[in-house]
Amino acid sequence: MNCRSQKCVEALRYLSKEEAVAMETELLRDYHFGRQQLTEILGNACATAITKVFPLWSLEKRQPTVLVVCGPDQNGCVGLACARHLHVFEYIPTVFTPKRSSDSLHQDLMVQCERMDLPFLSYLPTELINEAYNLVVDAVLGPETEPLSVGEPFTGVLQTLRGLKVPIVSLDIPSGWDADESSSDGISPALLVSLMAPKRCALSFPGSHFLAGRFLPFDLQRKYDLNLPKFSGTESVVQL
Amino acid sequence: MNCRSQKCVEALRYLSKEEAVAMETELLRDYHFGRQQLTEILGNACATAITKVFPLWSLEKRQPTVLVVCGPDQNGCVGLACARHLHVFEYIPTVFTPKRSSDSLHQDLMVQCERMDLPFLSYLPTELINEAYNLVVDAVLGPETEPLSVGEPFTGVLQTLRGLKVPIVSLDIPSGWDADESSSDGISPALLVSLMAPKRCALSFPGSHFLAGRFLPFDLQRKYDLNLPKFSGTESVVQL
Repeated sequence: MNCRSQKCVEALRYLSKEEAVAMETELLRDYHFGRQQLTEILGNACATAITKVFPLWSLEKRQPTVLVVCGPDQNGCVGLACARHLHVFEYIPTVFTPKRSSDSLHQDLMVQCERMDLPFLSYLPTELINEAYNLVVDAVLGPETEPLSVGEPFTGVLQTLRGLKVPIVSLDIPSGWDADESSSDGISPALLVSLMAPKRCALSFPGSHFLAGRFLPFDLQRKYDLNLPKFSGTESVVQL
Repeated sequence: MNCRSQKCVEALRYLSKEEAVAMETELLRDYHFGRQQLTEILGNACATAITKVFPLWSLEKRQPTVLVVCGPDQNGCVGLACARHLHVFEYIPTVFTPKRSSDSLHQDLMVQCERMDLPFLSYLPTELINEAYNLVVDAVLGPETEPLSVGEPFTGVLQTLRGLKVPIVSLDIPSGWDADESSSDGISPALLVSLMAPKRCALSFPGSHFLAGRFLPFDLQRKYDLNLPKFSGTESVVQL
């Protein structure tokens, strides 16, 4: 890992929760990136990752339905942008938001989905999900969440997700996991799309794993020793 | 054009200045899209269009240099985002802003470029440009500009651009053109990237012509009878 020869490919680094929060703070405070800007480009990249692992032609249901479950915070914002881009990519996304958000960015992203005629679910029954949707996007909770502090309505939602037969796509981390360690009794996504850098909990992640966030400044990549793999062409995601 | 049979492909519509402004207003006011959000995704798409027409391997200079000239308003904002994405796509963009902007979005996009070590030019000499850059991105003035009202420093910048030998890429419309009609004595870009919908001035545009803005809600596309061509896969641009 300390090898500095040009031929030596250094290992990808998995960030701790503190590092992930610190890096995002720098991006917003020092680089003057905006949350709206990051959310849009990350949501687009997450939808693109989904098209790679679950292309339209591979879906089993008669319609290319996807349920996107969006929490009230930043992870849910990326989920809402992802749902909208899935719609543009000709999937049929339905949105479920277990809790109203007081965040104006979240509210604007909701209006965009509503005005673009994306349907919203008002409840989340396991049987209906398995029957009606090809996959479920989990954008409920992000790495800043303390798993022990998670209460209702999220514990109920996570329990429902754990009981599903259809594949789950988690954005950034699987909701309910501690960002610093993997979980054996939490939800078990088929696809994980890490945002900007993978978190420690994904170190031995067994499913498909993609990285979104190609815009990350090279200086920050170096500062956090990320050793990200090369994105090809103009691709917004890369498989890890 | 009035043919409603499914097999009849209706003609692409070129928006008047008034229609273009009205459509953008609806997008911001009724759909709650944010300028930061639109700028980021459009800037990314413009950079993607450039990679298609001027791929890295095709550039003649020893380094993949690009000069991006950004005005103080919305067109310049997209130019700044485009410059940053060109940097991510491994071009070497240099930015020139002929006039300081009082727009906070413009200022934030400048900080992003500065912090990501994109160089800025302080002047614009024709000879140096032909010598040093493979191409010039024109993000100076948008369709909302009245050509007759354009004064310094822009008239000088446009005169320099008209004298260039290296190809020009214009974003949305060629700067200095009236959005409603084509111009024979203005600048003459090799590539035009229309944003969201082509404007009337591009009706008989002789160069390469791409469209960016795939996120445009289908309802708005129908309301303005745009008849946009189909974007393929997850592509953010389509050739017109």
